[in-house]
Amino acid sequence: MRTRAAVALEPGKPLEIMDVNLEGPKAGEVLVELKATGICHTDEFTLSGDDPEGLFPAILGHEGAGIVQEVGEGVTSLKPGDHVIPLYTPECRECASCLSQKTNLCTAIRATQGQGLMPDGTTRFSMLDGTPIYHYMGCSTFANHTVMPEIALAKIDPNAPFDKVCYVGCGVTTGIGAVLNNAKVEQGAKCAVFGLGGIGLNVIQGLRMAGADMIIGVDINPDREEWGNRFGMTHFVNPNDTDNIVEHLVNMTKTPFDQIGGCDYTFDCTGNVNVMRQALEACHRGWGESIVIGVAPAGAEISTRPFQLVTGRTWKGSAFGGARGRTDVPQIVDWYMQGKIEIDPMITHTLKLDEINHGFELLRKGESIRSVVLY
Amino acid sequence: MRTRAAVALEPGKPLEIMDVNLEGPKAGEVLVELKATGICHTDEFTLSGDDPEGLFPAILGHEGAGIVQEVGEGVTSLKPGDHVIPLYTPECRECASCLSQKTNLCTAIRATQGQGLMPDGTTRFSMLDGTPIYHYMGCSTFANHTVMPEIALAKIDPNAPFDKVCYVGCGVTTGIGAVLNNAKVEQGAKCAVFGLGGIGLNVIQGLRMAGADMIIGVDINPDREEWGNRFGMTHFVNPNDTDNIVEHLVNMTKTPFDQIGGCDYTFDCTGNVNVMRQALEACHRGWGESIVIGVAPAGAEISTRPFQLVTGRTWKGSAFGGARGRTDVPQIVDWYMQGKIEIDPMITHTLKLDEINHGFELLRKGESIRSVVLY
Ligand SMILES: NC(=O)c1ccc[n+]([C@@H]2O[C@H](COP(=O)([O-])OP(=O)(O)OC[C@H]3O[C@@H](n4cnc5c(N)ncnc54)[C@H](O)[C@@H]3O)[C@@H](O)[C@H]2O)c1
Ligand SMILES: NC(=O)c1ccc[n+]([C@@H]2O[C@H](COP(=O)([O-])OP(=O)(O)OC[C@H]3O[C@@H](n4cnc5c(N)ncnc54)[C@H](O)[C@@H]3O)[C@@H](O)[C@H]2O)c1
Ligand SMILES: [Zn+2]
Ligand SMILES: [Zn+2]
Ligand SMILES: [Zn+2]
Ligand SMILES: [Zn+2]
Repeated sequence: MRTRAAVALEPGKPLEIMDVNLEGPKAGEVLVELKATGICHTDEFTLSGDDPEGLFPAILGHEGAGIVQEVGEGVTSLKPGDHVIPLYTPECRECASCLSQKTNLCTAIRATQGQGLMPDGTTRFSMLDGTPIYHYMGCSTFANHTVMPEIALAKIDPNAPFDKVCYVGCGVTTGIGAVLNNAKVEQGAKCAVFGLGGIGLNVIQGLRMAGADMIIGVDINPDREEWGNRFGMTHFVNPNDTDNIVEHLVNMTKTPFDQIGGCDYTFDCTGNVNVMRQALEACHRGWGESIVIGVAPAGAEISTRPFQLVTGRTWKGSAFGGARGRTDVPQIVDWYMQGKIEIDPMITHTLKLDEINHGFELLRKGESIRSVVLY
Repeated sequence: MRTRAAVALEPGKPLEIMDVNLEGPKAGEVLVELKATGICHTDEFTLSGDDPEGLFPAILGHEGAGIVQEVGEGVTSLKPGDHVIPLYTPECRECASCLSQKTNLCTAIRATQGQGLMPDGTTRFSMLDGTPIYHYMGCSTFANHTVMPEIALAKIDPNAPFDKVCYVGCGVTTGIGAVLNNAKVEQGAKCAVFGLGGIGLNVIQGLRMAGADMIIGVDINPDREEWGNRFGMTHFVNPNDTDNIVEHLVNMTKTPFDQIGGCDYTFDCTGNVNVMRQALEACHRGWGESIVIGVAPAGAEISTRPFQLVTGRTWKGSAFGGARGRTDVPQIVDWYMQGKIEIDPMITHTLKLDEINHGFELLRKGESIRSVVLY
């Protein structure tokens, strides 16, 4: 079949909107008609050429929602008409990682996914001249139709609006999950969130759900203060207004009883390795935990004095919010439907596929929280 | 009163054995007659001059055992005749850290202890000419008598032999505690221990207690293989015999089912920041945790690509094995008395106070596991 897609032909160039060929689903695969897709910072990272593992030509996009159109041989958990969210972190429930009960990082199809291929080592997309087009993060949601492995699709409430819950495919789950699954924040905690973009704001609403007492937003963009306030932020700090952001946070979190100070949990949602260090060092001596969510430029390294760890700080990371996609994503969609979490105000722009490059521009300029493309 | 002590007059010089003045215990303080003290790597770190916070003249030593001789005003939990182990990490049970139930790093007397002083800001030790002598880690066990705050003494089984259980004052508790309290290692885990000295061997016996399946010792000193074997090590690797110690460990831990490989828990017991990085990167993707125990040289920093954390590895540290001194140290002494843990074979040398500099030499040359000075 043919479908319409925004194709990344080369790094650093705008996407090109064109018709492409799409082969039908093979065994264990599913054809999905996408109804909406968000544009995430990670798409921009790859498109810009900064991602050393970026492959071209590719169909980017990993934050989608749509409807199953056709299932390949042996697919049992999905049928045409089911509403689904594509998962860049699949959940096979059979591999050593899935069965460890300690991680969401399923490895069933990791090798091929990293090479821009389907599990059988080929692509389903190609140019009209036959040139293969790479898949991206196993999803490629910047196309009206895509083919996905069954284990990489979460079946969701058919009443959920595509143009909102597509965001659960990455940003919402990443932010809320980092709080609930990775940090396991408890009632009354004092927390700081570095970077209030599409991820950081969801960390903030995750902290509100978890019952954190101090939710300190940190961003160099002063416009983000108002954004943080909407989702439960209790304090805002612009690092450019203070000499030493670490000391500033440590002082803010002191109490008459606790004169040591420091955050119980901090989250990096910037991808900047210097910020990651600040986030660690702003943690409370003895027990503070810092969660790295941001994706750093190729080759960049984090560093600190090991004394920071010996005196009780913990450095962790989070991928897809520690969420097991098929199990947790439908749950988060339900939370949205119940009004337990907010999504609508974070979708600042809706665009047509033809306007997708404008969505990237809004993201680069920091003018959007989430732009969503509607098919 | 007067007592006999080994005094560190200057960094980089041998200790000098001499009579010193010792003032009696003030309110909340206790006079202890030491019966034995171990020599730990941390004493050597300070004596060498590498410790930027080292103060001189000082009476070093922090791994002792002895008998209460006299108690100051208001001391209620101890009386003359009680057998005790001095604690460089006190346990006041009243500060924000003690009450957090998340850390052993009591802060009740941290400021003065770091300055080589008793909680009232003065020293109890002085030269015969009146020059004050600094306390060390709040203990100063390289003296026949010392004065300690009540909250920094663990009351232990009076039948326990001083020349063995002094080692519980640092090395044993640090190693076993890192496994049980910080890493919380579970049955069947695959673990690697970097550095098989006085700390690393106790990590190994902690892993045996916890029921780990693979206990891989890593040391550049081939003599340490036999040592590791005595306490439960299942495999030994000399990093000098392999091109890439991280890959080597990852491969060793692969199974037919788990073709990713990596350790569930790793422990740095070397203090070398390059080794700390190896220990982190040898952890299993998705869930491996690395615990830094070693104390690095001043200014040295650890680093890694943040991707290591985002893909599920955790970097932690351990101070005094996460043990709450007054609560956990008596328990570990009981475990020794019950035969649940071993100490005797690790005490490779016993010396008189006059021979203490020889003990430091054995440590520098890697010829001892633990030298113990008997008073
Ligand atoms: N780990 C994961 O699973 C995962 C998933 C999705 C996205 N990400 C990553 O998360 C990061 C954030 O994504 P996003 O979509 O929210 O990006 P974004 O560009 O929308 O937001 C980043 C925010 O950080 C702020 N910022 C930049 N430098 C700062 C500094 N020095 N101090 C404080 N704030 C600073 C910016 O002003 C902006 O508000 C990216 O690196 C992205 O690749 C990770
Ligand atoms: N965190 C704490 O609470 C705490 C408590 C006590 C001691 N320590 C620290 O723990 C560390 C170990 O103390 P110890 O008394 O066991 O020291 P040690 O000198 O007895 O043992 C260190 C071991 O590491 C090995 N080693 C050195 N370089 C190595 C390398 N590159 N790769 C592999 N092995 C290597 C040595 O051969 C030796 O066997 C020290 O840094 C000490 O200061 C920390
Ligand atoms: Zn994303
Ligand atoms: Zn799996
Ligand atoms: Zn020690
Ligand atoms: Zn305390």
